[in-house]
Amino acid sequence: MKVNIGIVGYGNLGKAVEQSVLSNTNFNLVAIFSRRNVTSKFNTKIEHYENFTEYVGKIDVMVLCGGSMCDLEIQTPEISRYFDTINTFDTHKKLPSEFEKLNKIAKKYGHRVIMACGWDPGIFSIIRCLFKAISKKEPITFWGKGVSMGHSDAIRRIDGVLDGVQFTIPNIDAVRLARLNKLDADVPKHFRECFVVAEPKNHIKIEHEIKNIPNYFKGQPTNVTFVSGEKLLRLKSKLCHKGQVISSFNSVHGTKNKMEFLVSMESNPNFTASIVTAYINAIINLKEMKLVGAFTNLDIPVSFLFLGKEKDNLIKNLC
Amino acid sequence: MKVNIGIVGYGNLGKAVEQSVLSNTNFNLVAIFSRRNVTSKFNTKIEHYENFTEYVGKIDVMVLCGGSMCDLEIQTPEISRYFDTINTFDTHKKLPSEFEKLNKIAKKYGHRVIMACGWDPGIFSIIRCLFKAISKKEPITFWGKGVSMGHSDAIRRIDGVLDGVQFTIPNIDAVRLARLNKLDADVPKHFRECFVVAEPKNHIKIEHEIKNIPNYFKGQPTNVTFVSGEKLLRLKSKLCHKGQVISSFNSVHGTKNKMEFLVSMESNPNFTASIVTAYINAIINLKEMKLVGAFTNLDIPVSFLFLGKEKDNLIKNLC
Repeated sequence: MKVNIGIVGYGNLGKAVEQSVLSNTNFNLVAIFSRRNVTSKFNTKIEHYENFTEYVGKIDVMVLCGGSMCDLEIQTPEISRYFDTINTFDTHKKLPSEFEKLNKIAKKYGHRVIMACGWDPGIFSIIRCLFKAISKKEPITFWGKGVSMGHSDAIRRIDGVLDGVQFTIPNIDAVRLARLNKLDADVPKHFRECFVVAEPKNHIKIEHEIKNIPNYFKGQPTNVTFVSGEKLLRLKSKLCHKGQVISSFNSVHGTKNKMEFLVSMESNPNFTASIVTAYINAIINLKEMKLVGAFTNLDIPVSFLFLGKEKDNLIKNLC
Repeated sequence: MKVNIGIVGYGNLGKAVEQSVLSNTNFNLVAIFSRRNVTSKFNTKIEHYENFTEYVGKIDVMVLCGGSMCDLEIQTPEISRYFDTINTFDTHKKLPSEFEKLNKIAKKYGHRVIMACGWDPGIFSIIRCLFKAISKKEPITFWGKGVSMGHSDAIRRIDGVLDGVQFTIPNIDAVRLARLNKLDADVPKHFRECFVVAEPKNHIKIEHEIKNIPNYFKGQPTNVTFVSGEKLLRLKSKLCHKGQVISSFNSVHGTKNKMEFLVSMESNPNFTASIVTAYINAIINLKEMKLVGAFTNLDIPVSFLFLGKEKDNLIKNLC
């Protein structure tokens, strides 16, 4: 029996999930839901977002590919009343409240929601959890070089900013010190490279304001460059990203250990699509176990990413 | 309520687990069980192995620290009739049959067994499973430089070999090609550096036999050096090791991705002790969910490595 899939949202992530789902012979892509007037070059059926309730009984899992800023907080609870869902919600500080909200809805309506299922939060969360349990200390995460949506949004909220983007660049000295278990709190972990479009008369004010946004830029090495709108569009189209989690710690007798996890990708949405598509099987496994509610990657054993014979042979083939 | 722990076996691993358990304020180390006449420098109570049944009701989790070759296949089923257990059984090809055997016993007697809970098999198994689910291809594992017990044992079984040890050394060209998603099957992944003690008259025969052991050495770049018994003891005492799992793959549209997991350690048993001790909490979580049977790391969500408030705050602190 194939798993019937729906995709909600048809931006970069939705398009990548479409291709990931189509390339998996266990999946049947039923429809893509969008508020916009879009077409699929693979001739996938396109439905208006409002019509999703008509697919109850025809779709097993809805993959939500909207943005964390506007879409997911609204759409996930709406759709989780009717379907099992997966999203890639990535606003770290809102994760606990989102989890609580979705857990209530999913339990009330007898569904499963896997939330925050990208690379960070997502598989990096698994790694941090594993590293902390083994090392008994906080693992250290570095991001970049790549665009940070949160920091870019913070820039764009400033008065007078017409557009902006922020690249996070890891401080290689901090990475080296983390590997040696010698990173002190006062060493900056990242550099913040900001590109901004604004009227020249506002440049000084805007640069000052950016560098003083608490939590995001204040106290961190930040560089602000003003560019043309055209240049900014080119910069925003760069989708490559990297990240790593490092845990260096001493065992009993003081013997040293290092654990490190790295990812790099040419396209952030394409890599994220590979992850979110892999977790569709987890929904099926949770359903078979009659579990309902909200789940993060931390709650899901990796064996749940496989079904049938492949799952039965995991010990033989992957242990 | 503290978790009451017993340790079975008091070699390098048992000693490291003792210290790991003692350093965790949630744990209470009740006794160490050994067949040998040993003493603990931490004044832990030492009991003869045969007496373990006297501790039913006094110990919650038995951590089995014997060797895969002789001890664990016998001791794990014996002890799992009476206690929840964790072992670090690491003979890859025997994992499926061991799992089946222990699953039956644990279910029959209402206990939990976490088996093969070291770094490989163990956390590397989790990573391979995650990488395969995301990339849809086999991840590649490299080991070393470090001692391979399996290969060392294979050498020692040869007629005329008085003692021997084998160091696995990764082929850095193969590592580079794996990262580029270009590793062909004909490129050797590892070099095999063997040190052997034997009578000079047997050297030629032994070298020939080692290099032709199927699965272990045949067709792999293998170097055999004959050394004195004293030199071999020094070589065998080297406990450092390394390993990495690499998955390079293309997403939809051909965009490239790389995932990599690395560990390095000065002491293999000390690092393994950190892992096996971390999974004691998993036993408690499995018990709370009234689950019985055998489990590998693949079956256990990483949130199970935490208890109480720490578990409740995982989304906030680690996602």
